[in-house]
Amino acid sequence: MPPSVQDLVDAASQGDKLALARLLTHVEKNSPDVPAVLHLLYPKAGNGYRVGFTGPPGGGKSTMVDQVTKVLRARDDAPAVGIIAVDPTSPFSGGAILGDRIRMQQHYKDEGVFVRSMATRGSHGGLPGVASRAATVMEASGKDYILLETVGVGQTELDIMEVADTVIVVLVPEAGDSVQTMKAGLMEIADIFVVNKADRDGADKLSREISSALHLSPKQSWWDVPIFLTQAHKGEGILEVTEAVERHRKALSESGNLEAKRQRRGTMEFFKTVEENISTGLHGLLAGNDHLQSIIGRIHRGEIDPYSAAVEVMRNRELLSTWVETLGG
Amino acid sequence: MPPSVQDLVDAASQGDKLALARLLTHVEKNSPDVPAVLHLLYPKAGNGYRVGFTGPPGGGKSTMVDQVTKVLRARDDAPAVGIIAVDPTSPFSGGAILGDRIRMQQHYKDEGVFVRSMATRGSHGGLPGVASRAATVMEASGKDYILLETVGVGQTELDIMEVADTVIVVLVPEAGDSVQTMKAGLMEIADIFVVNKADRDGADKLSREISSALHLSPKQSWWDVPIFLTQAHKGEGILEVTEAVERHRKALSESGNLEAKRQRRGTMEFFKTVEENISTGLHGLLAGNDHLQSIIGRIHRGEIDPYSAAVEVMRNRELLSTWVETLGG
Repeated sequence: MPPSVQDLVDAASQGDKLALARLLTHVEKNSPDVPAVLHLLYPKAGNGYRVGFTGPPGGGKSTMVDQVTKVLRARDDAPAVGIIAVDPTSPFSGGAILGDRIRMQQHYKDEGVFVRSMATRGSHGGLPGVASRAATVMEASGKDYILLETVGVGQTELDIMEVADTVIVVLVPEAGDSVQTMKAGLMEIADIFVVNKADRDGADKLSREISSALHLSPKQSWWDVPIFLTQAHKGEGILEVTEAVERHRKALSESGNLEAKRQRRGTMEFFKTVEENISTGLHGLLAGNDHLQSIIGRIHRGEIDPYSAAVEVMRNRELLSTWVETLGG
Repeated sequence: MPPSVQDLVDAASQGDKLALARLLTHVEKNSPDVPAVLHLLYPKAGNGYRVGFTGPPGGGKSTMVDQVTKVLRARDDAPAVGIIAVDPTSPFSGGAILGDRIRMQQHYKDEGVFVRSMATRGSHGGLPGVASRAATVMEASGKDYILLETVGVGQTELDIMEVADTVIVVLVPEAGDSVQTMKAGLMEIADIFVVNKADRDGADKLSREISSALHLSPKQSWWDVPIFLTQAHKGEGILEVTEAVERHRKALSESGNLEAKRQRRGTMEFFKTVEENISTGLHGLLAGNDHLQSIIGRIHRGEIDPYSAAVEVMRNRELLSTWVETLGG
């Protein structure tokens, strides 16, 4: 008999890694048990602190996460760390990536660290929701810090960073000029900037350009976004970055913004969950519903455009009622 | 009196740029007229060919789009070109980006070229839908080629590329190694690889690494993904890239995959439109509905978790019925 959701939650709360991994799989695959899992876990969550790492591929974000974890674990209070690496690669893309994951897993023999890669293809835009739930699961299982890492940088990655309390944007000197950074929407979301691989040409120039841009459009009265030069592979500058996270946490909390952020996150989670249920219900209806099937056929044959078809469906009270009946279980 | 939707569609079909710009604004803002606009435009669309350009920031994608446009316009048939630059920057991010847009606008004094930047923050994951609709509007207004360009590379950008017929992934030698490229999901979506700024160190190495990776996991029997070395700012290699687009178009079409792709796109557009309507309806209901308001309040006070709140709402037949009543207009 497979363990019940309650068993898994109990075991994960007591530090059982297999149970935690299974709960994360539930969340990642959006299994029917997810609401039950999260209902049980939510009261135990809320004490973890979420730090997001984003920036273009190849900037050394994984190494940075690795080193920040080391710094945190070396502290007197040795906080437990959960790492969520959001990875859009399909599971069968090649040995190199598998190797990379094994490297991470081997590195974290430490019992106080849990690493999870989440593949994202096919999650249909629900990824920020999945990342947020995974963070909740990790918090509830006793992780004090949740480090969220993305591979690329784009709209979804910006949305993922909204589920973090502190956002660190990692750049490298040669990853394009500061105008590119601004275009990618990174200026707006950064609480801390890191120029990694700072021994390379152009690090100081990039740092100055970011600094000027920050002065042109200051974000908040209660926080000046700092810029750090690091060499993550050598551990240089990591202590300073980690201390800045703590300062930002304090400033967030004292200004009342941490509470406001968490409330917004709760509202977002609520709407996302409702929307997902509705969308899943609609897709589920497709297989058995002749009317929906026939509409899709007409779209494929070019007899109706998708937008008019959508309007037709939304005006079909009978279909909508059938659909509503399928919701809520 | 503002022009009617029919007036705008007529004018845009005859090449009126202001009318086209207005229709794109409707689509971008998801105005209530969007279904009517698309209903009128859809029969006129379907003859344009969509080429997507993606890759990390700073790779020279804008320059590449610029140069491919030049090559296309110089052909004997001088095809009309529409450019959609998906730009996550908020409109007030700074002068540099505005300057960049003005540069593009000035460059395309050519009547046969239309450029549109679409800001994306706040479009709530509906961006691939917006990009696809914008492409439909451009097709219907007589553009033969639609060039879709993203600033960053991430999950949403990968999704946007699904609305393109041919996807060009643009990399630069120093933008990270090939493993990073694989991790970012770019191997799976590329129909054509371009290593731009090929005069820099590492271009040949990157090209060889991509080539090896492609041999490890070949994508289709009917298309071998080519790799080009370019220097877009000098126009070097652009003719070859543009010719490869034509070859890919022929291969897609002859293998039956172009038709299949367009059918999938129609289905996707249908579901997205329905889901958007439903989600907008739910958010609209929030303001005037005491029950929904009280649930959000309970979430904020920590009295209920967002997932259980969602389940509660989904089981509330009365609320769902009210909601269904608001749909379909």
